[in-house]
Amino acid sequence: MLGESIKVRAPATVANVSCGFDCLGYAISDPADIVTISKTNDPEIEISISGMKADTIPTIAENNTAGKALLSLLEGLNTKQGFKIHIEKGIHPGSGLGSSAASAVAAVFGANILLDSPLQLEDLLIHCMNGESVSSGCAHADNVAPALLGGFILVRSYEPLDVLKLPIPENLLSINVLPDYIVNTMEARAILPKEISLTSAIKQSGNLSGFIAGLYEKDFALMGRSMVDLFAEPFRSALIPGYNAMRQSAMDSGAIGCGISGSGPSVFALSDSLNKANIIGEAMVSSFKEAGLESKLYISPVNTLPPKILD
Amino acid sequence: MLGESIKVRAPATVANVSCGFDCLGYAISDPADIVTISKTNDPEIEISISGMKADTIPTIAENNTAGKALLSLLEGLNTKQGFKIHIEKGIHPGSGLGSSAASAVAAVFGANILLDSPLQLEDLLIHCMNGESVSSGCAHADNVAPALLGGFILVRSYEPLDVLKLPIPENLLSINVLPDYIVNTMEARAILPKEISLTSAIKQSGNLSGFIAGLYEKDFALMGRSMVDLFAEPFRSALIPGYNAMRQSAMDSGAIGCGISGSGPSVFALSDSLNKANIIGEAMVSSFKEAGLESKLYISPVNTLPPKILD
Repeated sequence: MLGESIKVRAPATVANVSCGFDCLGYAISDPADIVTISKTNDPEIEISISGMKADTIPTIAENNTAGKALLSLLEGLNTKQGFKIHIEKGIHPGSGLGSSAASAVAAVFGANILLDSPLQLEDLLIHCMNGESVSSGCAHADNVAPALLGGFILVRSYEPLDVLKLPIPENLLSINVLPDYIVNTMEARAILPKEISLTSAIKQSGNLSGFIAGLYEKDFALMGRSMVDLFAEPFRSALIPGYNAMRQSAMDSGAIGCGISGSGPSVFALSDSLNKANIIGEAMVSSFKEAGLESKLYISPVNTLPPKILD
Repeated sequence: MLGESIKVRAPATVANVSCGFDCLGYAISDPADIVTISKTNDPEIEISISGMKADTIPTIAENNTAGKALLSLLEGLNTKQGFKIHIEKGIHPGSGLGSSAASAVAAVFGANILLDSPLQLEDLLIHCMNGESVSSGCAHADNVAPALLGGFILVRSYEPLDVLKLPIPENLLSINVLPDYIVNTMEARAILPKEISLTSAIKQSGNLSGFIAGLYEKDFALMGRSMVDLFAEPFRSALIPGYNAMRQSAMDSGAIGCGISGSGPSVFALSDSLNKANIIGEAMVSSFKEAGLESKLYISPVNTLPPKILD
């Protein structure tokens, strides 16, 4: 039906979570992207963008994460429906908070509803991944899966795609701090080594497994000592001014663990109480300030909900 | 007190479990080593050995896994007590069933009791590891930890040592098949690559984590699809005649998963029923027979008990 329209909110996400590079991610409550999708008569995807750094984001569907995700959905469904979408960026692009993923998820989630829900939530994932690949250079699920499905997600395998919802210990809070600084996602990926020692791989494997066991056991200490990143942090931390001091300030303030959110520059810490979370968050912001960076602070529980329909 | 003596049984163990190279291991019921430890007046460790391939095992304490483990214990306790130990090998040395680990664990467990239990069970682990390093070339915990503590063990970290007991789904059975063939532990380790691709490391990390989640969720299908080994099996399988066909026969017979036990040549499979386990075990034995190898079959649940005091 012409003129049919829906407005969807998809949240920011924290990928990697120190110990689970490309495997682990969770959704938070704020910030979020809001995408309005309307059916059109013309079999094209027309994109407009407002909000955070809107002018830096391509509006050609093939080059836009939401547009590409919709094209993938339409191809999967073998339909030629056109859409007009407006993306209201609440999440800074290139922040490491899953900005691209949120736009792709909101667009696909909304379009599927406008098409009378031919696909289940889980089946939308591959299209969101195809969309997000426009910005990251390859198809990952550690941002799109939690943005789409909600909660704490383990991507066990990509071929075949196998994502698991993990348990979330009560009182777990995420502290997210976004410094006013740019890290390019593709550059942050290019800086990583192609090969690592078997010894490091085994260590990291033990850490991710320990973290998973910690979630099941509601053992914050085990989660904390498992939050070690041998794959990305040793390289990417150099891209974020004042990172080491900031991390130390979070740990000194009682964080369970602290690391880079996705490819940064956003950082995250975990806490088991709101009182502590506020103290940790302020310490992280202060520490970035000492390194000359203003930053934004978000504190929220893990967001277990799917994208929200606003209208 | 002179002449004080104790007899201890420590079981075989399955290390790696396909997805957890150097991280994961569990104890089974049979076979086992039985070690008799007696205090002596002379501050030496005197070793005698009987049973499986007894004549191939060094009896000088420094070169014997049980002897070296005892020396480590005595050094840790700063005591000069002498011991006479007799090792009855029920587990074939070099079988991939944790033969060295069992001897070390039984000796240390027994000696600690004869010394009036100065150390807790967990604190004996490092001495067992030091002992086992004589045969494997480096200190690992994926055999000694389950042999000592019982159950299904995740070695989250070696520095500092951090071992976790994992939950064991009801009805889980281990099928162990030991072909009449020799694989040298050090050679099996030397064949492994020193470096691997980051991509493989991430995949393997996802698999181990998926397996851990499977144990917690009692999800045999998830455990099964996580039992993938990109680190060791691609290299070590070539050291075991007929390995691929044997593995296929186990999977075709309904195994949850199947892989190399430790560094082989012993192989293992997991099953969720005794009926299936018998069929799987027979298929594995038959398959090895077609490759010209006689083999021994052991079926048991995961052994959750610490070493057993026999006298």
